[in-house]
Order: sequence, then structure tokens, then C-alpha cells
Amino acid sequence: MNAAWIVNGRESAVEPADRGLAYGDGLFETMARREGHIPWFDYHWQRLQTSCKRLDISCPDRSVVCSEIAALDPSSEDCIVKIIVTRGSSGRGYRPVQGASPSRIISVSPWPNYPESRYLHGIRVCHCGTRLGENSALAGMKHLCRLEQVLAQREVEATGVDEGLMRSSSGYVMSGTMSNLFLVKSNQLQTPSLHLCGVAGVMRRAVIETAVSAGISVRKRLLSVREIAEADELFLSNSVFGIWPVNAVGDKQYSIGPITRMLMDKLRIPQNTRVLNA
Amino acid sequence: MNAAWIVNGRESAVEPADRGLAYGDGLFETMARREGHIPWFDYHWQRLQTSCKRLDISCPDRSVVCSEIAALDPSSEDCIVKIIVTRGSSGRGYRPVQGASPSRIISVSPWPNYPESRYLHGIRVCHCGTRLGENSALAGMKHLCRLEQVLAQREVEATGVDEGLMRSSSGYVMSGTMSNLFLVKSNQLQTPSLHLCGVAGVMRRAVIETAVSAGISVRKRLLSVREIAEADELFLSNSVFGIWPVNAVGDKQYSIGPITRMLMDKLRIPQNTRVLNA
Repeated sequence: MNAAWIVNGRESAVEPADRGLAYGDGLFETMARREGHIPWFDYHWQRLQTSCKRLDISCPDRSVVCSEIAALDPSSEDCIVKIIVTRGSSGRGYRPVQGASPSRIISVSPWPNYPESRYLHGIRVCHCGTRLGENSALAGMKHLCRLEQVLAQREVEATGVDEGLMRSSSGYVMSGTMSNLFLVKSNQLQTPSLHLCGVAGVMRRAVIETAVSAGISVRKRLLSVREIAEADELFLSNSVFGIWPVNAVGDKQYSIGPITRMLMDKLRIPQNTRVLNA
Repeated sequence: MNAAWIVNGRESAVEPADRGLAYGDGLFETMARREGHIPWFDYHWQRLQTSCKRLDISCPDRSVVCSEIAALDPSSEDCIVKIIVTRGSSGRGYRPVQGASPSRIISVSPWPNYPESRYLHGIRVCHCGTRLGENSALAGMKHLCRLEQVLAQREVEATGVDEGLMRSSSGYVMSGTMSNLFLVKSNQLQTPSLHLCGVAGVMRRAVIETAVSAGISVRKRLLSVREIAEADELFLSNSVFGIWPVNAVGDKQYSIGPITRMLMDKLRIPQNTRVLNA
């Protein structure tokens, strides 16, 4: 398949005055579509709605977005669906204009066929030098201001590993560049709390809920570089690739442990996924 | 005049896959054009070039941009010129694709006729609750990730003042939402150092150079809320409005002092401005 877009239901391009471009004044969701369904669509939509509310942007109508996704790709081919919602176009200046009409940009792009070895043997990651600025007003949202992740991904590429861990400006390990981070220590699952920075990932939520259902204790807290080094198991999550075990951070090696394997098994897409949307 | 745009020299719209929209992966310059000239154009261009280099984005050709500005508005009417440079379009994912062709988006918009009273009597400002995340990798650049400023401007509007001061996540007072900050204390000019966050404003540079030329000592350092409260004079700068004296931050009053007046006089646009471009 080729990538395709639809902007506000009809156009194929974005106005140069769109505040998403001008100021990163908007949000996005990147979703896996498998066999015609988007697993976790409810979770994506809840995050989008909650974040729109925080930014005071009108959230688009869910049924309109769903019908636009179906129109863009009527096949059941596996693909990536992305929704961008911005505050819309306005004149110059940071101040939002009251009553501006938000923009919605829906796109589909080919399914990334990640190597199976990443699931079987895990991935190598590095610690990125690029930090995440701490700002509780933005923490948790998947907003459009992602230059930190772009710079960190350049480091990942230069290092030749599969993904990179990002620390906050105070030095806490917060997440991967495009994924959330989990560690297992003494049979407890831990993941960074996201009140300072980071994205509250949809797969992070699914991992936490699945672990709790399986009787595993889950703790959200700020994690240090040392705690990462001393973890029994380490894995990354996002809603496209699911779960990737980490087999190395720099020189430190990890084996793929039982809790990681159990969560991977329960959350494997598409086999065992709860399909939440229509 | 009406606002007008030109995208990559010909189009009037932006591709939905542009990384400026997707990730804030780009830069901008907002410039005053007075009587057909852009004062400080050299400074704007130098900042754009330096920032492009930091982000590894190819800077557009200066002569092409200048001719596009002239084509967009051949009159000598006062207006605002904005240049956006992005890393261009790419597939999904934060990682920049090697050899992508950057986008340039030039726009003109009407001159904002700020009330003369702001220059004569000063402005009222508030301390915003929205903080600036600290990240030395982004500090100084006028990149497209401006959601913090958008949220802060909502506070300024709600408070009913003219501009707002923003603190970094550690609590240092860094700038206005759309301006740089200066204070005078014991005849010394001080302005926040920008190694943690903030934009290295073109008018900030001009103010510093003008002050040094006039024999005034200038210090760049991190400033506390208390130091703002104890300042003898306070003013804000940007390259569109020039210098606005601050007459109040919340309940604290300031009078417009001799150093502020001297700098306003030397930097008044268009009368005494060094016209640096063709």
C-alpha cells in the first residue's frame, strides 16, 4: 500500500497557517490496524479526548474519524493509522483564537515489518544524551512537539542500536524515544511515573492492566539509571510493535525473563488482542 | 493587506507528511518589515543558519528567500514576514531520513498596530504558571515546538495583562511568552542566560550590543523571581515591537528608567534602525 492522507474530510494538504505546523499546537495518535481492526482504539481515543480537553481543543467526532479511516483504506490489510488533531488555522501569535475550527488529519501508511528477532531475542538500546524537558503541563500527552525525540533518534541511528532510552532534565530514565519503559525487579513490575514528562502510552496502559489482572504488583515511580542497570528484566512497549524485550543497554546484558514473556504472550497482536473498536 | 503564503516557491499548502507539522521538526523567524526593509535581517538569518546547523537541516538559500519575500509583498507597506523551515516530508517515525528536502514556508501578514501607550507608559505583565522545560539541546533556537508559549498566552489572556513572564522548570525567570526579558539593577543591564531554555531573540542581541556600545555593563545570568521584584527597571524586547517597558508585574510597580529610555530611543524602528539587508 502507499501512504495516503485526508485533511478535514476532503483536502489533501494543510494550510500554512495551521497552528499544528506553526507551534506544535496539537496532538496525535499512531495506531496499529490489524485485519481491519484497531486494537486499543478506545484507549487511543480516550487519550486524545483527555489531551484535547487539557489543551482546550475541540476533539473531533469519533464516528467521523472512524469513517474517514475506513474510507482511506477499505481493505483489511495491516497498516498504521495516524490521527493528527490541531487547534486549526489562525493569524500570527501564540495566543489561541477563540472559536477556531480544529483540523483533523488522518493518514494510513504501510505496516512496518519489524524483524521477528526483536521479539525472540530482544533489542539493544542505548542511553541517549538528548534529554526530555520537564513540564507537568505537557506531561503524558502525545502532543506535536517532538523535537527531543527527533534528536534522540539521530543518536540511536548513530549508535547503531534498535532504540534509545531518554532521561528527563533531572536525570530520571523516562522512556524510549518512541516507547514506554518497564523493568522487573524482585517480581515487581515498575514503570516511570509520567508527571514530569513522557507520553502515557496506550500499550503502557494495556501492559499495566494486564499485569495487574495477572496478579503482578505494578509500581509507577521515577527510575534512576542505576535501577535500570540493576533490573532483572527490561522491556519497551508501544501500540504498534507491542512489547520488545531489551537484551542490552550499552554493555549491560539482560535475559528475557518470565514476566516479560507472560506479558508478551497475553498482549500479542493480533492473536490475543482485545478488539475494542467497531 | 491580507495574509499570504508561499510554500517551496510555488505551492500554497503544506504536505500532511511534513515533519514540521508531525513533530515540530523545524524552525521559524518572525520579522518586522518596515518601509520595504527588514531591520536585523542579518541577525535573523544568522540565527536561522546556526539553528539549521544544530538540527542538521539544510538552510534555504538566502537570495531565494529574499526574492520570495519581495514577490509576496512588492509594496513598501509595513508588515510581518515569517519564514518557517522544516526538515521536509518523510514517512512515519521520529528518525530523520537522510537527504530529505527541507520545506520553506514564507508568509506575510498585516502589521500589528500596537497601542502607542505601551511605549509611553509601559505594559503590565504577570508571572505565568506554565513553565519552560529545560533542555540545552533546544535552548536558544526558535524551533517549532511552542506549546508551552501557547498555554502561557492563554494565561496572559485570562489575567487580562499585556504579556507574561515564564519560569523554567527549576524556577528561573527566563523570558516573556513572546519576548526576551531585561532588568536594570544598579545601572547594570541583566538578561537571563539561555543555556537551559528560551529563545535567543534578535532584538535581545541588538539590545545587548547597543548597551555595550553605550558603555553599559551587561550580564547574562539566571534570574530569580525575587531579582525581578527588586529590579530598578524592567523591559521586554522582540524584533516586531522593539522594546516595551514593564510598569507592573502583578502588584509590583516599576517606573520607566533612564537606561530603558535610552535603549528605546537608540533602537526605535524604523527611525534609527540599522538596516542590514538589501
